[in-house]
Amino acid sequence: MEPTHKKLRINRERFKQDFDELAQIGATADGGVHRPSLSPAHLEARAWFRQRIEQAGLVFRMDGAGNHSAFLRCGPRGAATLLLGSHLDSVRHGGRFDGPLGVLAALETLRVVNESGLALPVNFEAIDFTDEEGTLVGLLGSSALAGTLEKSVLQSPRGGRERLEAGLERSGLTEDGFFTVRRDPDTLAGYLELHIEQGRRLAASGTQIGVVHNIVGGNSYRLTFIGRADHAGTVGMEERRDAAQGACEFTLAVRQLLTEDFPGCVANVGDMAFDPGAFNIVPGRVAVSLEFRAPDVYLFDELERALLEVAASLAEQRDLKLNVEWLGKWDPAPMSPIVQNAITEAADSLNLKHMTLNSGAGHDAQSLAPLCPAGMIFVPSVDGASHSAREFTHWQDCVNGANVLLRAALRLAAER
Amino acid sequence: MEPTHKKLRINRERFKQDFDELAQIGATADGGVHRPSLSPAHLEARAWFRQRIEQAGLVFRMDGAGNHSAFLRCGPRGAATLLLGSHLDSVRHGGRFDGPLGVLAALETLRVVNESGLALPVNFEAIDFTDEEGTLVGLLGSSALAGTLEKSVLQSPRGGRERLEAGLERSGLTEDGFFTVRRDPDTLAGYLELHIEQGRRLAASGTQIGVVHNIVGGNSYRLTFIGRADHAGTVGMEERRDAAQGACEFTLAVRQLLTEDFPGCVANVGDMAFDPGAFNIVPGRVAVSLEFRAPDVYLFDELERALLEVAASLAEQRDLKLNVEWLGKWDPAPMSPIVQNAITEAADSLNLKHMTLNSGAGHDAQSLAPLCPAGMIFVPSVDGASHSAREFTHWQDCVNGANVLLRAALRLAAER
Repeated sequence: MEPTHKKLRINRERFKQDFDELAQIGATADGGVHRPSLSPAHLEARAWFRQRIEQAGLVFRMDGAGNHSAFLRCGPRGAATLLLGSHLDSVRHGGRFDGPLGVLAALETLRVVNESGLALPVNFEAIDFTDEEGTLVGLLGSSALAGTLEKSVLQSPRGGRERLEAGLERSGLTEDGFFTVRRDPDTLAGYLELHIEQGRRLAASGTQIGVVHNIVGGNSYRLTFIGRADHAGTVGMEERRDAAQGACEFTLAVRQLLTEDFPGCVANVGDMAFDPGAFNIVPGRVAVSLEFRAPDVYLFDELERALLEVAASLAEQRDLKLNVEWLGKWDPAPMSPIVQNAITEAADSLNLKHMTLNSGAGHDAQSLAPLCPAGMIFVPSVDGASHSAREFTHWQDCVNGANVLLRAALRLAAER
Repeated sequence: MEPTHKKLRINRERFKQDFDELAQIGATADGGVHRPSLSPAHLEARAWFRQRIEQAGLVFRMDGAGNHSAFLRCGPRGAATLLLGSHLDSVRHGGRFDGPLGVLAALETLRVVNESGLALPVNFEAIDFTDEEGTLVGLLGSSALAGTLEKSVLQSPRGGRERLEAGLERSGLTEDGFFTVRRDPDTLAGYLELHIEQGRRLAASGTQIGVVHNIVGGNSYRLTFIGRADHAGTVGMEERRDAAQGACEFTLAVRQLLTEDFPGCVANVGDMAFDPGAFNIVPGRVAVSLEFRAPDVYLFDELERALLEVAASLAEQRDLKLNVEWLGKWDPAPMSPIVQNAITEAADSLNLKHMTLNSGAGHDAQSLAPLCPAGMIFVPSVDGASHSAREFTHWQDCVNGANVLLRAALRLAAER
């Protein structure tokens, strides 16, 4: 007979009630939520979360980065902490599942473990990270906790300095506070996060659980093809040095390169700016917004080299100049094999079909991966919709994911 | 021996002095001029033109459309008028040659004919048309004179209603005035215009004079390729319905179609608008700004059909929708064979190398073409530059053009 803790399951109804209550906060008319980080709606969601923690008899904690936690002392004095979590903020006009699912499943896990009275070798913590989505900075709370946040980033945050200052004021946080919350890796037993896939692979293959192998790295460039602006009536086709021809050939070549030579990677031309941008003027300059992602460092570098070579070669063939502006990157984050294994075993124990996949989106888990064994559990997204009110995951899939989180956490705790 | 009037030439120095004086009015630091129609600088140029007309002993006339003319009664009572002209307004931050060259050569022609004391079968008029360039409406004065201006156009002018009203106020013109200036075709013996080519064909082939065969027609569309916006990290390349792929294939196909199947025609994708237009979102919609031009009605229609077919077919192949929005057109205007012949003979009489070509740009001559025998003389543009301070034509080419204008005008007059 299996030990008791291997048969534990989350409380499906309580979990659902939490989910529905939380989805009311910042709810939009189309069924989504609008809870940008540190906005009034986000702070209301955090206040609700604190209340639920305290109602459950768990310890509430908040750190200088605003990260909100439920703490369960189920381990011996001085034991390390197993972190479970995600985030309660949303993109602007986002969906109900991205973030909250992981936080609520973590809370539910702590409640179930607490109720079971189990004594474990580690303590459990369910954490809601500040500003995962980047309406302010992106991975803000988790990078502060990891000690990798840089002061310069707060000086010119991607959401604008004004919005950051307003958010700090509204929530009573200070900039200095973010640099006081770094956790010593020795105090961390691991990190586990349940999240919706935000893609179509699980649903398309009828798989219930995704075991994340890597969180992909991303890199972005602005590539400007430069030709010569000309009168589009008086200058013949053969005489033109049309910047749009280079930009368009490149855009088609990107897709071809990725599908033929870089399976598992993605690239996107998400915008173009034409200069001067008039019906009757041949485009003199076209700036292409390029982003690409790869699951490991080797492919990441190979892909970057290949894309820049293609751009340079096409520009040259068209007698165009190419201006290359690098805009920044984040590196691929491999998930811990120990955690992947715990997730796989947990899914098997629940008779759930699982597969290994990479996360094309960024997550707090990538901040934690350098500190401690970190991993992620994905559940299917209907139609792959995300960052939109259309975001939806069947409740049974949410329950499956939360049960895998609970059991994987117990396995990791036991292996400690 | 040839009759005297066949040996006439314009006064090169006087013509140059006029040109240099005029170029001071609205001059920009980079050597161009900024004289949008009915702006203070444009009205100053017109006042200067009136002064030069009166100093030359010619009759000054202004009509209700603000068109300024020098009139020379060199024909018998009741004789028709041979119109010579162009425009003194410029595009915003334009060049010194586009327009003024034709007006000043027309003035110089009238002075030379006046000084020669010739009696001709027609009267001569040198005209400066209001708003050829379209900072207000485009071909405004010439279409009013032709009786083809529509009232609705003044209600929503392409330069905006406010600018038109300010210009009318500044110049003392009224909207009603534009509808009082239509000329009876019986009163017009023809129309001749000297202009810079605004392209590279004359210079590239070492030809001094271009005889315009057709003024091309132009047509514009906004074509929107519609796919599905997706997360550019989580949705694989094969799953995407990327609107940019259709828009880019179309842009390349336009160029191929024109160079292979439509010699003498041009087409331009001058702008694209990506929606939502973010690095990390697969483009859901891309709107393409398309303009194309053709020298005759048959090619014009064929080209339109071919371009729209290509767009529809590429959209379908990529599983995209296509939204077609027509934005308006102007029809091709054939130049009179009689006038083309007079220009050719005039160039031959001056031992100038000439060639027939089409005008890719619009000109006042296209307003006149339905009323009377109309034609245009082109002179070489260095590097094809136009609508820019870089616009330049060697003075000898300007003089050649003015002499061809003079002699072609005398030939047309004699044939009357």
